[in-house]
Amino acid sequence: MRIAELSSRSGTSIPSIKFYLREGLLPAGTPTGKNQAEYAEAHVRRLRLIRALIDVGGLTVAAARDVLTAVDTTDLPDFFLMGVAHYSLDRPIRRDPEHPTWKAARQQVMDLVRARGWQVEDESPNFDRAADAVAAMRDLEQDDLLALLPGYAEVAEQVAGQEVDLVIARGEPARMVEGVITGTILGEALLNAMRRLAQQVRSAVDSDTIHL
Amino acid sequence: MRIAELSSRSGTSIPSIKFYLREGLLPAGTPTGKNQAEYAEAHVRRLRLIRALIDVGGLTVAAARDVLTAVDTTDLPDFFLMGVAHYSLDRPIRRDPEHPTWKAARQQVMDLVRARGWQVEDESPNFDRAADAVAAMRDLEQDDLLALLPGYAEVAEQVAGQEVDLVIARGEPARMVEGVITGTILGEALLNAMRRLAQQVRSAVDSDTIHL
Repeated sequence: MRIAELSSRSGTSIPSIKFYLREGLLPAGTPTGKNQAEYAEAHVRRLRLIRALIDVGGLTVAAARDVLTAVDTTDLPDFFLMGVAHYSLDRPIRRDPEHPTWKAARQQVMDLVRARGWQVEDESPNFDRAADAVAAMRDLEQDDLLALLPGYAEVAEQVAGQEVDLVIARGEPARMVEGVITGTILGEALLNAMRRLAQQVRSAVDSDTIHL
Repeated sequence: MRIAELSSRSGTSIPSIKFYLREGLLPAGTPTGKNQAEYAEAHVRRLRLIRALIDVGGLTVAAARDVLTAVDTTDLPDFFLMGVAHYSLDRPIRRDPEHPTWKAARQQVMDLVRARGWQVEDESPNFDRAADAVAAMRDLEQDDLLALLPGYAEVAEQVAGQEVDLVIARGEPARMVEGVITGTILGEALLNAMRRLAQQVRSAVDSDTIHL
């Protein structure tokens, strides 16, 4: 197919396609004349993956290139590939790593997680994310909300199990990477929306009970 | 206490305090001289609530004023107060309300929620949030991830139950509003961090199993 069809098939504008070609994220088509090239189904699939990484995951072009390199390295074990995709989403956010409240918050999360038997390396930026939220709750004197932490860990285990099984079931490396990125980001948006709906429902129900 | 102590006690800068006074979010102190006033414990608590609304919840000053007005209206039922706080967090985000994929996505979420017996009004912006994520999954041909939706609803029910009980247990209106804002926003950040940790753990475990 020509670039116009590639554009309409993939929902990606021609200038964007040319940018991805220049940056080496999308392999060149087969030249068919001066300034013309023929593209294949593989290009449509590749563009879908690029959109997942950049539009959905918010990755920089450089980070997307790293993930695509991992996808193209055919002998990588699945867990390594999934790890590369997962880590590409992490941007440092720690608020103040030397502050006692923050350090104590990070330790509290690590202790909880270890007590559940979760094996995660100390350096995981996800501990930083959790510590940010816990420290903010303490700063705002909302410490009673920390009672929710074990419940969050419980449901996190449930959903992560379902999510990872679904992504592994895809088998094909590029589809697995797409699944990690879209599942992490869009799944988060969906889970958060469902939680807010459930809060709406639940607070109405509880208030009825109280006011009866 | 003088404004300097109010500033250090509440962790809010003096210019911010003066801004909240001017905007009517913080009641004036008791005048003790030309350009001097005395502030009380109630001002420290009020500033904590303002920080929760603006810094954590990302509310505009106008939206924060609406919530504070509700807090100060002593005869409002609890569920109304909690609803005002919850709704103040919602900013419209719908991607394309006339697009068939988006409309179908919103309907799918509404059907699921109704089938679970959740009573939520059709107009809830949380249906829009969920529809955004579902439509994006379909656009990116990640439809298999939609199999996660019932699981998300299940855990959303679990955590929302615990969260709402905790906030209602506070009893005092201003503390309940603080709990709705900080619990919704910071709880979301904490739950998302725990989910990512659990995904890390789970994908390592599953990959080990596969590669044994």
